[in-house]
Amino acid sequence: MSDLSVFSETLKPPVMSYNQSLEAFKQDKDFAKIFLGHRDCRTDDGLPWVIPLIKTTQQHISNDPTLNHEHLPLLGLPEFTRVATELAIGKHSIALIENRAGGIQTPGGTGALWLGAKFLQQWYKVNFPKQTAVYVSLPAWDTHGGIFQNAGFTDIRSYHYWDCMEMGIGMKELVIDLEDAPDNSIVVLHCTPNNPTGMDFTPQEWIQIANLMQKKKLFPFFHLSAQGLASGDLDRDVLPFRFFIEQGFELFCAQSFSKNFGLYEKSVGNLIVVAKNNKTLLSIRSQLEIIIRLAWWSPPALGARIVATVLNNPAILAEWKENIKEMAEHIMLMRLKLKEKLRTLGTLGTWEHLTTQMGLYSFSGLNASQVDILRTKRHVYLGANGQINMSSLNSGNIDYVAQCIHEAVNLSYLG
Amino acid sequence: MSDLSVFSETLKPPVMSYNQSLEAFKQDKDFAKIFLGHRDCRTDDGLPWVIPLIKTTQQHISNDPTLNHEHLPLLGLPEFTRVATELAIGKHSIALIENRAGGIQTPGGTGALWLGAKFLQQWYKVNFPKQTAVYVSLPAWDTHGGIFQNAGFTDIRSYHYWDCMEMGIGMKELVIDLEDAPDNSIVVLHCTPNNPTGMDFTPQEWIQIANLMQKKKLFPFFHLSAQGLASGDLDRDVLPFRFFIEQGFELFCAQSFSKNFGLYEKSVGNLIVVAKNNKTLLSIRSQLEIIIRLAWWSPPALGARIVATVLNNPAILAEWKENIKEMAEHIMLMRLKLKEKLRTLGTLGTWEHLTTQMGLYSFSGLNASQVDILRTKRHVYLGANGQINMSSLNSGNIDYVAQCIHEAVNLSYLG
Repeated sequence: MSDLSVFSETLKPPVMSYNQSLEAFKQDKDFAKIFLGHRDCRTDDGLPWVIPLIKTTQQHISNDPTLNHEHLPLLGLPEFTRVATELAIGKHSIALIENRAGGIQTPGGTGALWLGAKFLQQWYKVNFPKQTAVYVSLPAWDTHGGIFQNAGFTDIRSYHYWDCMEMGIGMKELVIDLEDAPDNSIVVLHCTPNNPTGMDFTPQEWIQIANLMQKKKLFPFFHLSAQGLASGDLDRDVLPFRFFIEQGFELFCAQSFSKNFGLYEKSVGNLIVVAKNNKTLLSIRSQLEIIIRLAWWSPPALGARIVATVLNNPAILAEWKENIKEMAEHIMLMRLKLKEKLRTLGTLGTWEHLTTQMGLYSFSGLNASQVDILRTKRHVYLGANGQINMSSLNSGNIDYVAQCIHEAVNLSYLG
Repeated sequence: MSDLSVFSETLKPPVMSYNQSLEAFKQDKDFAKIFLGHRDCRTDDGLPWVIPLIKTTQQHISNDPTLNHEHLPLLGLPEFTRVATELAIGKHSIALIENRAGGIQTPGGTGALWLGAKFLQQWYKVNFPKQTAVYVSLPAWDTHGGIFQNAGFTDIRSYHYWDCMEMGIGMKELVIDLEDAPDNSIVVLHCTPNNPTGMDFTPQEWIQIANLMQKKKLFPFFHLSAQGLASGDLDRDVLPFRFFIEQGFELFCAQSFSKNFGLYEKSVGNLIVVAKNNKTLLSIRSQLEIIIRLAWWSPPALGARIVATVLNNPAILAEWKENIKEMAEHIMLMRLKLKEKLRTLGTLGTWEHLTTQMGLYSFSGLNASQVDILRTKRHVYLGANGQINMSSLNSGNIDYVAQCIHEAVNLSYLG
């Protein structure tokens, strides 16, 4: 047989900025090195946040003699998808009362985004063959555009979000982008807690966007992760999302339980579908079932059982809500402390945005050259765009990080 | 807002023969009803096969305080993919020695098929834009063609496999189909234990197919599930697959641990890649990583940890091998008993194929009208194509099933 590979040399190398940054951090031999770009939620000890009650719940499930190991239904564990959906859209949501909303269990939030994207791609291909633009925010999570591409969309565009001069949202440019969007385009929106910049729209801005999207018939696809970790209140974190449902939008929402349950390795996601009526919901579910059957057959059970157990049991639920609140307060404290320390040090620039922002992530406002100085001179690693996971900060490293940021900013301005 | 749904009425209803058959069975109120089309492996008591050592292993893992819950690497748990790959291709495989074979963890065997298909689709689109035919067997698992379609292939063809007149493989037609295939087409092949018909090629036929595929540069994509449950011997079950590797083929293999570990709800799969050289293997892995990142991010951990623990621990491994052997012997006994009973009853037709076949599934040779009679007159449910899961038969139901088959065959011939 020929020794030549079927596969030519044309394969492109992967570009993974997050992994590259983590790899560089791992290679760094400096004792004082600090990583501020974690994907997960960290405790004040700098460790992955393992919630004790989740661990106990998992043990109970593993020891349950009544559970066999049969496949879950293709659409997932019904007691999970029901409570997961209720957690996001609210138990008393009009969409639930009218029986036109439901969830589909997926391998993680990424799986939910992919599944929704794949359905939309198939549907748009038939119904709007010439109008298949997908809008992701600039900046977005680095997977957002790729997931829609992976699902078959080719026209991925961005809408302005972060304005680095104003350290906030560039609403004017954003409105222009959405005004220019072809009717029926898909727009990926961030729920408050997992906004990559940490900066959420004001209620007035959300209303303006909803009105614009209604006018242009744009389809909202929300991404919801870390629910509760922005305000500490599970309901408050999803008010803008629920507002869209109240306004009568049909929409999708990719929900993940990795961060707020510390269930990363369990891959627990849920695709929430809100349709106009029950008939459409059932149609969409039947189509999603076909896609699932041809992609991963049925989702993994354990994580879904854990989430279902917690959310269905008032005593455990109360304890989990308390845990969420504590973590959210820890994150807010880190925001406040960093801002105060930078102010005390007299660091050039304004740092008010650190506490205006909410949730796990922050666009710190540090530019690429400052990030570079932090890495090369101070062994402090964060995203090239200045993004910090606020839970990567803790009582043990915040003084040092603030001092390093101060020096990096001074160096970059004064040379 | 308009009350009309974005989603038109054009959505097609799903066609799912397996689910329909199961639904009809569930609706049947008859006390003596029997289902012979299970997707999982059943014990002689008619229950899902839960392997006690797997349950204990799971409990140990759940109670392990050293495990945190961080994401697995995108390509999966390395200690799992290594042993899983070794189990299939052999520890001493030349491809492993030459460092050009490896595994990628996926959500189940379906996930492995989809992932491999998606990679091939992207690669073929660039390199063989006009030659992207995918051949699946006739009959195949009802998902095989759909998975490749879901991954973006449009030219799905079938190659002849089962010859219902001969109750065996239609080798002549199969050879014609592959001879006619465009060079570089992809061919999906069944490993012995999960062949949907139960009828495997003879060693000579495997050699003939390998030669033909070499000549035509056809790309083999194997599907391996239920390893060990055909012959009771883990190695013997994959001899034809290993023969292809020895012949120098580059190939993929979608491996599932649902059936032989009873881990259905854990979604444990592995995509095995055998490349020409290490460089190509690494290229392919980097491309697969990108696809994974945009489809499910990282696979669920628990099932992979269970499989890795069992396969890495000689004492547990020996016990599991014993379990596998017992189940395989049970399945073979059911084949033998059914054949003998039909012979004793003097049922029309030849039933020799029941014991020539191997593995969990059998094309019984019953035609659609006989299957229909069994369902409507005797409350016995099997696939419309006559497919039976041999582990759905057991000491408690085999006499009754044989009697029903006898009557159905007589009725269909004699009216």
